[in-house]
Amino acid sequence: MRERTTSNLRAQAANRGPRAAERIYEATLELLTEHGYQGLTVEAVAERSGVNKTTIYRWWPSKAPLLRSALLHSRVLDVEIPDTGTLRGDLIALAGQMMRLVGDQRTGAVARAMLSDGAQGELATVARDFFADRLERERPLFARAVARGELAATADPVLLIDLIAGAVWMRVLLRQSPAGEGFVESVVDVVLAGLRA
Amino acid sequence: MRERTTSNLRAQAANRGPRAAERIYEATLELLTEHGYQGLTVEAVAERSGVNKTTIYRWWPSKAPLLRSALLHSRVLDVEIPDTGTLRGDLIALAGQMMRLVGDQRTGAVARAMLSDGAQGELATVARDFFADRLERERPLFARAVARGELAATADPVLLIDLIAGAVWMRVLLRQSPAGEGFVESVVDVVLAGLRA
Repeated sequence: MRERTTSNLRAQAANRGPRAAERIYEATLELLTEHGYQGLTVEAVAERSGVNKTTIYRWWPSKAPLLRSALLHSRVLDVEIPDTGTLRGDLIALAGQMMRLVGDQRTGAVARAMLSDGAQGELATVARDFFADRLERERPLFARAVARGELAATADPVLLIDLIAGAVWMRVLLRQSPAGEGFVESVVDVVLAGLRA
Repeated sequence: MRERTTSNLRAQAANRGPRAAERIYEATLELLTEHGYQGLTVEAVAERSGVNKTTIYRWWPSKAPLLRSALLHSRVLDVEIPDTGTLRGDLIALAGQMMRLVGDQRTGAVARAMLSDGAQGELATVARDFFADRLERERPLFARAVARGELAATADPVLLIDLIAGAVWMRVLLRQSPAGEGFVESVVDVVLAGLRA
């Protein structure tokens, strides 16, 4: 993860953003959770991050692309796409990271804030991009499982992720009930057994 | 559903609330989605519903119990607990209702608004009560499946619902991607096959 993050930041610095990218991203996510998307402004991000407003505007013309970059590239929301050698191991590791992200006070608040704008509007588009990006990053995990003969080539990885991630969101964010020892393993085992049946 | 709803409203009228209960509930849910929980006030509910403020305060001392009643008893959010004769049929019918609720613009907005207050605070408690109430109402469906020999008595109905409802929320509200023909059936079939494996 560290390596990916570092190379990400390097890419930011080189191509897509200022060197203070991570500070800007974290300020953006904080302000989103404190004031909602309506209340998020580039001015406030500049003030919170201590980066000049014109510098921010040089890279992001408005708050929507800024938030998009923050969601896609902030270290805070980063997940490591696991490669444990088995599909079960990979999915348990991935679901464990999801648990931590939605269960953590700071990143859980980001997750909830992403939903607040409904199905229309700029924030909804940004949220959709976030989940599409995650899925693209997860695809190699499934390709490896197919190559190892652990998953049928016809299996639908989106359905599989929706079941696993959905159960995590439902238990932690919606039901707000303790997941309990072995929750992630049970979720993965039911889904894998179901797909293979 | 009609019978349950009618008897609910009758109970409201007789014991717990004014006859205008449903009007008050709908005004409460509308205002929640328009202004968020912070912006929800009993005064605005009175104005929107056309019911006297003192009448509302007679039944609900503050906005938290009012919203709780609206979520638990509003016709808008009601689901019919199906009894089709098979567990698969029941779960497909239930998941289909979840799809409609989160996919509908008005009720989907309520679903998102319920998440906006985080894990602390009054709204979070009310949201938790909502999901706990749903689960209690769904339990007989699982009891019938166990009695018919379709589900092991040791199976965890909460895990099952988290997987099914979670996949619906993830696909419709988070990923905002078309569920497609047969999505609900695929979700239920994977989960049932997985539980029985």
